[in-house]
Amino acid sequence: MTVGQSIPRVDAHAKVTGTAQYVGDLEPHDAYFAKIVRAPVANGLVRGFDLTAAQAVPNVVRILTCFDVPDIQFPTAGHPWSLDPGHQDISDRKLLNQRIRVWGDEIAVVIARDRVSAERAARLVVPDIEAYPAISTPQEAMQPDAIPLHEERPNNIVARTEFHVGDGSFAQAVDTPNTVMVSGHYHVPAVQHCHMELVHSVAYMEGDKIVVISSTQIPHIVRRVCGQALGIPWSKVRVIKPYIGGGFGNKQDVLVEPLTAWLTTQVGGHAVKVELTREEVLGCTRTRHAFDWDVQAVATADGTLLARTYRGFANQGGYASHGHAIAANASNVFKQCYRDRLSLDSESFTVYTNRPTAGAMRGYGIPQGCFVMEALTDDLAYALHMDPLEFRLKNCVEAGYVDPHNGITMHSYGLDQAIAKGRAAIDWDRKRAAYQDQTGPVRRGVGMAIFTYKSNVHPFSLETASCRMVLHEDGRVSVQMGATEIGQGADTVFTQMAAESIGLPVSHIDIQSTQDTDITPFDTGAYGSRQTYVCGTACKLTGQSLRAKILEYAASMHARGAEGLTIRDGIIYDEADQQLCTVAEVGMESSYSRTHSLHITAEETYHCEQNSFATGVCFAEIEVDIPLGQIHVLRLVNVHDSGKIINPKLAEAQCHGGMSMGLGYALSEELLFDDACRPLNANLLDYKIPTAMDTPDLEVHFVEIEDPTAPYGNKALGEPPTIPVAAAVRNALLHATGISVNSLPLTPQKLIEHFREAGLLGGNRHV
Amino acid sequence: MTVGQSIPRVDAHAKVTGTAQYVGDLEPHDAYFAKIVRAPVANGLVRGFDLTAAQAVPNVVRILTCFDVPDIQFPTAGHPWSLDPGHQDISDRKLLNQRIRVWGDEIAVVIARDRVSAERAARLVVPDIEAYPAISTPQEAMQPDAIPLHEERPNNIVARTEFHVGDGSFAQAVDTPNTVMVSGHYHVPAVQHCHMELVHSVAYMEGDKIVVISSTQIPHIVRRVCGQALGIPWSKVRVIKPYIGGGFGNKQDVLVEPLTAWLTTQVGGHAVKVELTREEVLGCTRTRHAFDWDVQAVATADGTLLARTYRGFANQGGYASHGHAIAANASNVFKQCYRDRLSLDSESFTVYTNRPTAGAMRGYGIPQGCFVMEALTDDLAYALHMDPLEFRLKNCVEAGYVDPHNGITMHSYGLDQAIAKGRAAIDWDRKRAAYQDQTGPVRRGVGMAIFTYKSNVHPFSLETASCRMVLHEDGRVSVQMGATEIGQGADTVFTQMAAESIGLPVSHIDIQSTQDTDITPFDTGAYGSRQTYVCGTACKLTGQSLRAKILEYAASMHARGAEGLTIRDGIIYDEADQQLCTVAEVGMESSYSRTHSLHITAEETYHCEQNSFATGVCFAEIEVDIPLGQIHVLRLVNVHDSGKIINPKLAEAQCHGGMSMGLGYALSEELLFDDACRPLNANLLDYKIPTAMDTPDLEVHFVEIEDPTAPYGNKALGEPPTIPVAAAVRNALLHATGISVNSLPLTPQKLIEHFREAGLLGGNRHV
Repeated sequence: MTVGQSIPRVDAHAKVTGTAQYVGDLEPHDAYFAKIVRAPVANGLVRGFDLTAAQAVPNVVRILTCFDVPDIQFPTAGHPWSLDPGHQDISDRKLLNQRIRVWGDEIAVVIARDRVSAERAARLVVPDIEAYPAISTPQEAMQPDAIPLHEERPNNIVARTEFHVGDGSFAQAVDTPNTVMVSGHYHVPAVQHCHMELVHSVAYMEGDKIVVISSTQIPHIVRRVCGQALGIPWSKVRVIKPYIGGGFGNKQDVLVEPLTAWLTTQVGGHAVKVELTREEVLGCTRTRHAFDWDVQAVATADGTLLARTYRGFANQGGYASHGHAIAANASNVFKQCYRDRLSLDSESFTVYTNRPTAGAMRGYGIPQGCFVMEALTDDLAYALHMDPLEFRLKNCVEAGYVDPHNGITMHSYGLDQAIAKGRAAIDWDRKRAAYQDQTGPVRRGVGMAIFTYKSNVHPFSLETASCRMVLHEDGRVSVQMGATEIGQGADTVFTQMAAESIGLPVSHIDIQSTQDTDITPFDTGAYGSRQTYVCGTACKLTGQSLRAKILEYAASMHARGAEGLTIRDGIIYDEADQQLCTVAEVGMESSYSRTHSLHITAEETYHCEQNSFATGVCFAEIEVDIPLGQIHVLRLVNVHDSGKIINPKLAEAQCHGGMSMGLGYALSEELLFDDACRPLNANLLDYKIPTAMDTPDLEVHFVEIEDPTAPYGNKALGEPPTIPVAAAVRNALLHATGISVNSLPLTPQKLIEHFREAGLLGGNRHV
Repeated sequence: MTVGQSIPRVDAHAKVTGTAQYVGDLEPHDAYFAKIVRAPVANGLVRGFDLTAAQAVPNVVRILTCFDVPDIQFPTAGHPWSLDPGHQDISDRKLLNQRIRVWGDEIAVVIARDRVSAERAARLVVPDIEAYPAISTPQEAMQPDAIPLHEERPNNIVARTEFHVGDGSFAQAVDTPNTVMVSGHYHVPAVQHCHMELVHSVAYMEGDKIVVISSTQIPHIVRRVCGQALGIPWSKVRVIKPYIGGGFGNKQDVLVEPLTAWLTTQVGGHAVKVELTREEVLGCTRTRHAFDWDVQAVATADGTLLARTYRGFANQGGYASHGHAIAANASNVFKQCYRDRLSLDSESFTVYTNRPTAGAMRGYGIPQGCFVMEALTDDLAYALHMDPLEFRLKNCVEAGYVDPHNGITMHSYGLDQAIAKGRAAIDWDRKRAAYQDQTGPVRRGVGMAIFTYKSNVHPFSLETASCRMVLHEDGRVSVQMGATEIGQGADTVFTQMAAESIGLPVSHIDIQSTQDTDITPFDTGAYGSRQTYVCGTACKLTGQSLRAKILEYAASMHARGAEGLTIRDGIIYDEADQQLCTVAEVGMESSYSRTHSLHITAEETYHCEQNSFATGVCFAEIEVDIPLGQIHVLRLVNVHDSGKIINPKLAEAQCHGGMSMGLGYALSEELLFDDACRPLNANLLDYKIPTAMDTPDLEVHFVEIEDPTAPYGNKALGEPPTIPVAAAVRNALLHATGISVNSLPLTPQKLIEHFREAGLLGGNRHV
């Protein structure tokens, strides 16, 4: 079995030696540099430009403005195209926008022979702008007199979703005797992905085809959106995705590719590159949605959850992007984690504001939903004087759960085992007791949070994936996946799956990490933690098909039938387990046979109409220094029920990255804005992501229950590790101090305010 | 019908606008430059090097010598691998050679950060060489005391081939009463391909894979030979062939790729490029073989050819390359053009010398064979006082001809019609008569020459080809051919064939001009005029397969069967010729169907065990200035029996290029050497290729008899146009002056000598 082994990353050698090629390595030698001129206000209208000074800058090739672009609105969300117009993404922006909706909106662009000239000229472009008051929050944007950001949505509401589960009602729960009710307002801020590689795209023309090389998670979708934005047949655009240095959802949006594609058409097909600065990426690409939630929960005194209500507002920022899908996803987690015996009501609004556009980010709404859900859970358990772990065991979703609205089914279930494993690992029971009645300025606490997560996007969107394999003369096999490696290790697990399904050692699999939409098998890309589950099945099916062709050829070489033949470790055995020949011999013979040459390849599509829930839990142990308002995370333990683990070492590394991202969400990360919606900390000095020094040893365990719907029993793992961390840390703080902090991040300033209010500090200090 | 239309070249736009990418456009930005240190003698042994001065040059990264390379000998000929060791190419060189066999042999290499430093250091490398006398000719090399160039071949003979055809013997013919015999010694020189783009290769490593970007005709063969030369699995090498600027057979040899591939492994995978200068390409790559022939022919007085003997010596130069195959090919043309009623005897030797290595060049020996054969034919007709056209009609090969040794069959025959068409075009009969009895210093003549040419290399080598097609969402189709565009227009005819076989307009076909051996369907490359015939069939089969899949999907969309459905111009019609839907609708639905998504692609191998002869004729009208010794070609008419012409305009252009190359061979081209085998004119100033000023209007006609074995009735056309030109010009000179010049090129100096000897000039002048 190759699957289940911790083989080294297949791209480790190339990445460590610096031979892996990224967009910057592939740009033509003489590419022009395009600098975007950004709006100096967050809400307004461009009346015109004075380009005199900018045009006088030497080496400027061309300056294009919002008055030059095609009059075509297009979407940017990285979703598969839908044949149903009502299900298509919202088309609400042009290549450059006259109507300004975000600070730094793209209003013009300077193309120059070099970066310095482009940047210099861009600074000299003088826009004439009619400024409007900036709208910071959904609540402001929903005021009747608020200026509509998009004329198609006069009330600024992008989407409203609601659902009800249960035979009863919240009022019925409230009226039930002997119950406890908690309620609260919760807030999570906008944060940014902080992928290491910036947003980078280069485009040039070959004949009438536009070639776009881009750091993207979704090459086939980028192709389609470029076609839409330019109003040309989609296959007149060719998108090439080389190695990329992280995306985390920001690159599941079509960020700069349509503009880059258009720019090359304006300079005769000469190569043009757009490379955003770190400041532009932080302030002007996409963020995780900020949310406000008003929630209530009722349980019986013995800890039976009766009912909950959630009312949420997602701050969409200036453009729709993924917004309509994310608030819905966030609210789904409420029903997919707990059983409300009477009712669960959820209502969510996604609302345009003048903040930066919010889009996809690892967890796709679930980290936000999980934070409020799990904070509420602990608040309720606290009110019930009940161990929150026991409360969860009593109320959490059970094996075989089926979502009543979309039919997604818990085909395999390991949440209970995950909780048990984490409970033991963190020494929960002892520590819960030990930290019960602390006094003094430094206290400890343990907290936890659970979650569930789908393994792909069916049935919300199309799930389809394909793969091609080529047998070479030496018996090695090239594998082309439409699915994309973005740093997460997808290529390594596909290599294992290909080896497994064909019967080759992994050293004989050569995965092609570059996607090229002209020739790479179709796939929608890296998102939704779908690849191992959906694309992995395409890989498995293709491997089986190639294997059958290899065996058929081997049989013909030996004048026999293929039945009874198998391949193990590159060797073909007959029914008596005797070696017939090697795959290398088949590769050589089929390539060069003078009587029957045959280029052995295989290609399969997997149309996926399955989904299954992964689950998991995070346990955090913290020490909180009350006078300093500082949380020190001592231990962080994630336990994942992600089915069979294809590559334990890689999976563990994936979890480490996700947990670190969750830690930043918990403690330090927040994009800050002034009243004009201008970013205040759009740089990595002022925007604080955790460093190694901030991070404890991260502990990961798996509960490996094979899922019957997956290619190798596996379920989602890419996004889940991030989801529960912030809530677990927040709940540990509640355990340590008895204080519920209902917003993120848990910064010293915020904690000091809470501690002071609770009388733990200063004149009111009880210690 | 798309096939048969003169659509513009599909790469015209990209090439004209400069957006087509060549090797130089694709090299990594920081590639090192490698300069080869070349032997300053043509025969000798390297005893050692003094590298002190070279190593002191700034920016030098590494200097490697013949003492550093792997002890592996490898072949360089661009032939398919043979599973029969006896049929494999001769492995007679290493990456760098200690034993020097040609002037400029590769003995060391300097890698530096830039070209200037590499070149400077290369000049400072001091080799210690033991020099041996240089061997210029096969005759010298075959002397018993000649120094063997390769110890495996002590007599320096690379190959000897002979054959006999006919039930009689030459002696029998000689003894026949009332016959005429002619004999002669013929010589053709070494010439060079003079492709516009130089020999250029860049290699770097991605992980443990070596990526080689190369200007080659044969990417899959380059991969294999790199694997052989480095002693690594073949698929650990990835060869990428972008647009290339001509090859003409020189790039059907693996010239610098193995060295480049090895160099990157010696600098940690950093990119290294090798770009030969024009002087290196002319003097140190490959040449057309120089040949010497001693021939005799006997015919009856009424012009019936009885018997011929040919004894030929091919000057192989220092390494075997394609040599063993070319002399055999050259001699085959003798039997494949004429019927000797009694006997034909041919014996050919291919012999190592210290001249530059001879290899493949357009026509692959046939231009040489055709020159001697057709010169001899005219000499015989002249001796018989017979119209050489009538002699040819009486003796040339007939419809249905089958080569007795290899079974290649004249499946379609248009030679007679081609001769008739050319006879009329040049006004042969009137001019033969008009130029009969000229006197004076300036005279005119008309001459002709015929040829036959195979349409691929079966049964000498494997013929296999494959193709893949991808249907895109917008109904356009990407086509990946293993076969290579090298400037000849292959991609355009494949586009037409793909459009034809699927049922799409050519604008909906998007051919991928770049081959990448990791993923491109397998093919052996551009040579042997095989691609339209062999690879065209792969293209047609794949188009038919894709078409069937499109129809099947369209049928499923309409809940019906696929029988009766057809595609015309991108529209699908039912049995009643009613429009069912479009291919674009199938593309969109199959990509995004929520119930049955399917990535529609097709891939097929064509294993070819067919071949067919193309034939043709060249007519030349010249004016010769006897005192100046100068030939002015007034008209040149080629008529080709190449079956159905896929793209007449492109075919005509192909002929123009070939005829121009033939004109250079006739009049001016010859690589010159001193006694030490040092090239004297390895530059485009002293080596004379025809300019536009030297070239008359080139006239081309086709006899379009469809060949039943070809995908669209087509036969070889790539190489043929070059073949008969030199002989036709030479025979026109015979007509004009009565003088047989039996060597090429027909330079003024040579003509003056002949004219003086014949008494046409000076004291002996008869005019």
